Amino acid sequence: MAVAIVQGASRGLGLQFCKVLASRADVAKVIATSRKAENETALCNMQSQFPNKIVLINVDVTKEHNIKQVVPKIMEESTGKIDLLLNCSAILHPSGKGETSLRDVSFEGLRTTFETNTIGPVLIAKYFSPLLLKSSGLFGKQAGKKHSGILVNLTAKVSSISDNQVGGWYSYRLSKSALNMATKNLSIELGRGKSKVICVALHPGTVDTDLSRPYHKGVPADKLFSTEKSVNYLMSIIDKLSVEDTGKCLAWDGNAIPF
Amino acid sequence: MAVAIVQGASRGLGLQFCKVLASRADVAKVIATSRKAENETALCNMQSQFPNKIVLINVDVTKEHNIKQVVPKIMEESTGKIDLLLNCSAILHPSGKGETSLRDVSFEGLRTTFETNTIGPVLIAKYFSPLLLKSSGLFGKQAGKKHSGILVNLTAKVSSISDNQVGGWYSYRLSKSALNMATKNLSIELGRGKSKVICVALHPGTVDTDLSRPYHKGVPADKLFSTEKSVNYLMSIIDKLSVEDTGKCLAWDGNAIPF
Repeated sequence: MAVAIVQGASRGLGLQFCKVLASRADVAKVIATSRKAENETALCNMQSQFPNKIVLINVDVTKEHNIKQVVPKIMEESTGKIDLLLNCSAILHPSGKGETSLRDVSFEGLRTTFETNTIGPVLIAKYFSPLLLKSSGLFGKQAGKKHSGILVNLTAKVSSISDNQVGGWYSYRLSKSALNMATKNLSIELGRGKSKVICVALHPGTVDTDLSRPYHKGVPADKLFSTEKSVNYLMSIIDKLSVEDTGKCLAWDGNAIPF
Repeated sequence: MAVAIVQGASRGLGLQFCKVLASRADVAKVIATSRKAENETALCNMQSQFPNKIVLINVDVTKEHNIKQVVPKIMEESTGKIDLLLNCSAILHPSGKGETSLRDVSFEGLRTTFETNTIGPVLIAKYFSPLLLKSSGLFGKQAGKKHSGILVNLTAKVSSISDNQVGGWYSYRLSKSALNMATKNLSIELGRGKSKVICVALHPGTVDTDLSRPYHKGVPADKLFSTEKSVNYLMSIIDKLSVEDTGKCLAWDGNAIPF
C-alpha cells in the first residue's frame, strides 16, 4: 500500500491531490503538510472525510529547522518510505500580484518568492529523498518498472525561458525556472544508484486557484481547468511515469515543455 | 564617448573588464562598483592607473535601499546615460564550495546565493535601465544599429538546464538559471519601445578566478582561460551584438547556449 506526501496541501491543487490520493484504494496514507494545518478549514474538512488516511502535519518550508524537526514524525507516519512526494506550495508574489514591469520588482518580493517556490521544495527533497529511495515504486508505470519513489515539483509553463514571449512576473518566473533546474539536479542525484527516484516538474495548465484567479480574463473557457480536472490530468501522467521521464518538465497533456 | 558600469568590479572578470574598458579610446568613464571598493586593493590600484576614467562607487547589490541611494551619484558621474552595464558579481556558494549533493544544501546557502547572483543583478537593472535606454548605442554592432544601451549578465554554461549532465552545485546552478530567465524578461521589457536595450547572458568559459579555482583539476590547459583571454572574447562578442541577439545566452565563442 502506497504512502504519499503532499507539501502545500491547504488549498488549490495540493488540497485536490489529497482528496484524489486518499480516495484511491491503493493508497494507505496521505501526509498533508501546511504551515498551520489546523487553521486551514478546507484541509481540516478534507481530513475529517478521510480520518484513517489523511494525516496533517505542520511544516513551514521556509524554515529548515522546522522541516528537520518533523522528519521523525513523518518517518513514523510513513513507516519509513514514501512512494510519491508532491511539492505544491507556491506564491505568485507576496502581494498576490505578479510584477507587470521592473517598477514592481523588489528585493523582498523576489526573496520571499524564491524561499517559498524554490528553496522550500529543494529542502523538502533534501530531508525526504531518503524515504523516496526506500519506495518499491507503487506509483508510475508498472511494466518493466525500474524506479522507486516519484518526486513531483509543480511548475508552470511560464517557467520556460525559451517560451517566454511577454515577460513580467519576475518573481514567479525566476523562481520556477530555478525550480526546473532543481528538478533536473534532483533527477541526476537521485537517479545514480540502484534505487532511482523519478523527478519531474509538472505544469498543471491554467487552473482556477487563488494564485492565478486574478489573471483569468481572456483565458478561453476550455483552457481554464478546475482543480479536479487538472489533478486528474496530472495523476494520469504520474501513473504513466517511467525512469525515462526523469528530469523533464511535462505539461498536463503529457507534452514536454522546453526549458 | 561611452560610459560603462561594471557591477562587481573588485576581482576576477569584473576587474579585468574595468581595465579593458578604461583602456579604450572610445570610453570616457568606467563606473566600478563593489560592496566596499576602498578596501579592495586590486581595484584601487586599477583606479590609480586610470584616475580620470575609473570612478569607484560602493554598492551592496543585496541591499535595495543602498542601490537606490547611489542612483543620484551614478546619474551625475554618467551624465545621465549608460552605454554598457555589466553585472559581474557572483558567488559559487557562501562557503566557496559548490554543493556536491543534497547533504550540502542549506537554506542559508541557497538564499545568499540567490541574493548575490540573481536578485542583485535584477535590482541593478531596475535602477539603471532608464540610463541604458538613454544611450545612443555606442557599444555593439554599429551597421544598421537599432539599439541603445547593452546590459550583460555574466552567467555560466552550468546554468543550462537542458545541458545539465552531472548535477550538484545547487545554489550556483539554480541562481544562474533564474538569472537567464531574468535576462530574457529584461530583453522583453527593455526591447518594447523605440529605444531598445540589448540584454544578454554571457558565459565566460572556465576562467582562472577565485570563484572556480578549486575546480580546475581536469580542465585541459587550452580550455582554462586567463581573465584577460576571457574578457577579450567577451568584449569581441559585445562589440558585435545587435537587437537580434537580445534575450540570448551566448558563450565566449559566440555560440548560443540552450536553456
